[in-house]
Amino acid sequence: MFHNIELDKSQPIYIQIKNYFRTMIAKGMLQKGERLPSTRELSSALNVSRNTIISAYESLVDDGFINIIEGKGAFVSDVNVSTNPGWSTDWTTRINKYAIEARELDIVKHEASWEKGMIPMSSISPDPELFPMEDFKRAFMNIISFESYKILNYGYAQGYKPFIDFLMEYMESKGVNTKGKNILITNGFTEAFEILISSLTNEGDYILCENPTHNTALKIMRLKKLNVCGAPMEDDGISLEDVEKIIQSNKIKLAYITPSYHNPTGITMPWEKRMKLFQTIMNYSIPIIENGFNEELRYFGSHIAPVAAIGGEGNGVIYIGSFSKVLFPGLRIGWIFGDRYLIDYLESVKRSRNIHTSFMDQAVMYQFFKEGYFEKYIKKVRRVYKQKYEKVVAAVRKYIPDAKLYGDGGLHVFIKHEGIDSRQLLEECIKHNVIFTPGDIFHINNEGRDSFRLGFSRVRDEDMEIGISVIGSKIEEMKK
Amino acid sequence: MFHNIELDKSQPIYIQIKNYFRTMIAKGMLQKGERLPSTRELSSALNVSRNTIISAYESLVDDGFINIIEGKGAFVSDVNVSTNPGWSTDWTTRINKYAIEARELDIVKHEASWEKGMIPMSSISPDPELFPMEDFKRAFMNIISFESYKILNYGYAQGYKPFIDFLMEYMESKGVNTKGKNILITNGFTEAFEILISSLTNEGDYILCENPTHNTALKIMRLKKLNVCGAPMEDDGISLEDVEKIIQSNKIKLAYITPSYHNPTGITMPWEKRMKLFQTIMNYSIPIIENGFNEELRYFGSHIAPVAAIGGEGNGVIYIGSFSKVLFPGLRIGWIFGDRYLIDYLESVKRSRNIHTSFMDQAVMYQFFKEGYFEKYIKKVRRVYKQKYEKVVAAVRKYIPDAKLYGDGGLHVFIKHEGIDSRQLLEECIKHNVIFTPGDIFHINNEGRDSFRLGFSRVRDEDMEIGISVIGSKIEEMKK
Repeated sequence: MFHNIELDKSQPIYIQIKNYFRTMIAKGMLQKGERLPSTRELSSALNVSRNTIISAYESLVDDGFINIIEGKGAFVSDVNVSTNPGWSTDWTTRINKYAIEARELDIVKHEASWEKGMIPMSSISPDPELFPMEDFKRAFMNIISFESYKILNYGYAQGYKPFIDFLMEYMESKGVNTKGKNILITNGFTEAFEILISSLTNEGDYILCENPTHNTALKIMRLKKLNVCGAPMEDDGISLEDVEKIIQSNKIKLAYITPSYHNPTGITMPWEKRMKLFQTIMNYSIPIIENGFNEELRYFGSHIAPVAAIGGEGNGVIYIGSFSKVLFPGLRIGWIFGDRYLIDYLESVKRSRNIHTSFMDQAVMYQFFKEGYFEKYIKKVRRVYKQKYEKVVAAVRKYIPDAKLYGDGGLHVFIKHEGIDSRQLLEECIKHNVIFTPGDIFHINNEGRDSFRLGFSRVRDEDMEIGISVIGSKIEEMKK
Repeated sequence: MFHNIELDKSQPIYIQIKNYFRTMIAKGMLQKGERLPSTRELSSALNVSRNTIISAYESLVDDGFINIIEGKGAFVSDVNVSTNPGWSTDWTTRINKYAIEARELDIVKHEASWEKGMIPMSSISPDPELFPMEDFKRAFMNIISFESYKILNYGYAQGYKPFIDFLMEYMESKGVNTKGKNILITNGFTEAFEILISSLTNEGDYILCENPTHNTALKIMRLKKLNVCGAPMEDDGISLEDVEKIIQSNKIKLAYITPSYHNPTGITMPWEKRMKLFQTIMNYSIPIIENGFNEELRYFGSHIAPVAAIGGEGNGVIYIGSFSKVLFPGLRIGWIFGDRYLIDYLESVKRSRNIHTSFMDQAVMYQFFKEGYFEKYIKKVRRVYKQKYEKVVAAVRKYIPDAKLYGDGGLHVFIKHEGIDSRQLLEECIKHNVIFTPGDIFHINNEGRDSFRLGFSRVRDEDMEIGISVIGSKIEEMKK
C-alpha cells in the first residue's frame, strides 16, 4: 500500500515520507497500534536509503505519531481520530455589517482585473523589473550579519529604532520641523491611515478631502461611517474656495490631503497654494493628515516641501509616508509622523492590532537606504518613469486630442473627456486587451464617469501607443 | 562654514554631503539663489574626492534642491521655506475612546518591564540564540533567486499562494478536514484574532473563553466592548460544567479556546475532553475559535489533534495558527483557517487594513519549511526547551514546595500559591532582578492574585535555580 507515496524534489525525502504517514495517521487511515512497514521493507519499496526512512520515523516519534519498540518495529501511537461529523453554519449570516461592507467596498472583488496579455494601465505599482535585486540581497546579508537574530525576534510596536531615526532625519531634509514629533512604523499607507482614522474619528464625523481622492482612503472612511466632504480639484489642486465653504457649513474634524502627485489626478499643488491651504484650514484649528504619496517620484521642477513643513514647530499636521509606491510594495512599510503624544497612543493601537511591523523588513529597508542603494535606484527609475510619462502624454495628445490631461509626474496621469462614459469605454477597451481605472472609483458619490486614470509604470514602451490608440479610437466610436 | 559637515562611515559620503545641503536648504539656512561652494573648494575643505562632491551635487539637482549653471556654479533652486509658525493642539483631547482604551490596556505601557541584568521569567519569546541563522539566510537566498522581484511587489490579500497550499497540507497532517476550507495569512495571532473579532462580533456580544486566558486576546475583546464570560480552568483544561452553565445563561456568540499549552496555565487538554467540549458547544451551534498556540512545541506524549480536527467536514471551528511563538516572531506570520466563505470576507477586511502581510516574509518562511529547516530546528529546540522545562519543574518543587504547578510543555509554567499576592511578590523579586508575570493580567476581572506565570525560554540554565529560589524565599518571607 505504501508504493503510492509520491516523492518529488520539492522538499527533503524524509519529510515527505513523514508527512505521508502523519496525514494517514491523523486521518485514521493507519490506526492506533498498527505496525508501520519495517525500514528495510519501505526503503526497498520506495527505492530510497534506509537512513532516510529512519529519519522519517524518528521525526514521527518526535511529533508523537508513532512509537518504536526495539526489535519489534514502529507502531502508531495513541493518536485519536474523531468520528464526530461536526456541524455547519452559514457564515454569511454570522458576519457583521463591517465585514459585509469591507467586502462590498473591496474593488478587487468587484472590478475588472488585469489578465495575462492585457496592457496594464490600471496598475500604478512600480515596475518590478527595475528593482535592484542584487543590492537588495546585499542589504539583507549585511543587516542580517550585523543584527543577526535581533531582527527576527519580537521587536517594538513603534518600529525598528535605527529606521525611525533615519526617517526622522529624512523628514528634516524635507524641511519638516521634527521637534516634539515622533514616528510610528506601519504596514504601508493603508494601515497608517486606517489606524489614524480609527483613533481620531467617531461614526458620523465630517472629514474634508479632495474629490476625487485615493479609493483606499475613501473605503476606510466609508467603513468608519464618516461623512466625507469633498472639495473639487482644480488644475493646481484642491479648490480653496470650496475648502472654505465646506469648513463653514460642516463641523470638520480632520482634513485629508495629497498635495503631491495626487491620486488619481497626478496634480502637484504649488508651494503658494500649499501655504494658503494650510492657513485656511489652520484658521479653524483643523488638523491635517497629509499623504506623502510618491513624493520621491518628482522628476520636474524644484523641490516642493510637504505641507508638514509649513506646520513649523506646531503639531497640526500628521504626515503619512510610504516608499511602497516606489520600492518593494511587497514589504508593506510606511510610517506616521506627528506629535509625539499622538504617536504614543497610536503605538498602543498598533500593538493591539498586530504587535508590530516585520522587524526584518524594516531592517532590510533601513540597510538599503544606509548603503546608498535607494539613491542609485531612484536616480534610475526617475529617468525611466519620466520617459514613460512623456510617452503617455504624447500619445494622449495624439490619440485623444479632445481630452483634458492631468498629472505632473509619478506613475499615472488622469484624463477627463466631456461626454464619455468611462465604464462603457472600459468595457470596450477590455475587449481589446486594454485596461485602466474608471474615474468614479475615486469620487465620493461615484460621479466622475467622464474621467479615468492611466497608470503607466508597468506598460512596456511599445504598448503605450497601442493602448492609448485603442482608448482613443473607442472614444471616437462612442461619439458617433 | 562647511567644515563642520560631520562625515562618518554609516553611509556613502556623497549621500551624507547631499543630505547636509538638503537639510540646510529645506530649513532655509541656505536660501534661494545662494551659491554653493565650488566642487574643488568643498573637496579640499572636506578632504574627499571631487567626484564625491560632484555626485552629491548631481543628486541635489535630481531632488530639485539646486541648479547647476555651466561655468558659474551650483545655486539653490526655487525651494520655498515656510515662516508660518504653525499651530498646536492638545492631541490627548482629540484621541477617541478606542485609542485611549488601547493605551490603557497596553500592558507594555503600564507593567514592569525586563531590564538588563534581570532573569527574564516574564518572557515567553523563543530563545533567539537557537534561531538557525545560516539556514534562514539560505532560505532567503534560495527563494529570492527563484521568485525574485515577484515577492517584493504587491501581492494578494489572502497571502502567498505556495505558503497557503503548504499550510493547508499542514492542517491535514494535523487530522483536520480541509474540504470547503481556506486560509488567510495574517500578521501573527494578534491580527488574526483582531480581524475575527472585528468581523464576527458587535459591541455587547457575549464570548465564552477560559479564565485565565491570553492577555492579548482579552485586550482585543475588551477593546471591542464584548462581554467576556470565563469558565475556570481545571487541571485538564476548561471546566465543562461551567461551559454548559455559561452557555445556558448567556447568549454566547463565539467560544475562544486554547486547548494546547494554554496561555497562561500551560495546560494541554486531553483528547477525550476535547471531544466532550466540542460536543457541548456544538449542541448550541456556537462556533469555536481555536488558538493553536505553541502546538508545535509538544515534547511529551502522543500527538493530540486540535479541536478543528473534531469539526470534521463541518465548518464550526476556526483555527488560528502561528509559528511566531516558536520561530522568528519578528516576522509576524500567522494564519486563519476556516470556512472558505468566511475567509472570503476576512480577506476583504484584511485588505482594508493593510493590503496584505509582507510577501517576502511569507515566501522566506515557506522556503524555510520546504528546505526542511523547520524539522531540523524544531527537533533541536524541543530538546532544549524540554530540558529547561524539567529544570523549572524541579526548581519549583524544591524552592516553592507548597505551590501548585501547571504546565505540560511549551515555554512557560503557571504557579498557584494559596495566600500570596503575586503583585507584591513581583515587587520584591524585581528588587532581586527576577521578573515574571503576575496572574491577574490573564484573568477576566483581574482576579488570580495568588498566581503567576513563569516563562523559561530565555532563562539561562544557571539562572533557573537562582530565579526560582529568589521567588521561593520571598514567598517564605511574605508568609511571616
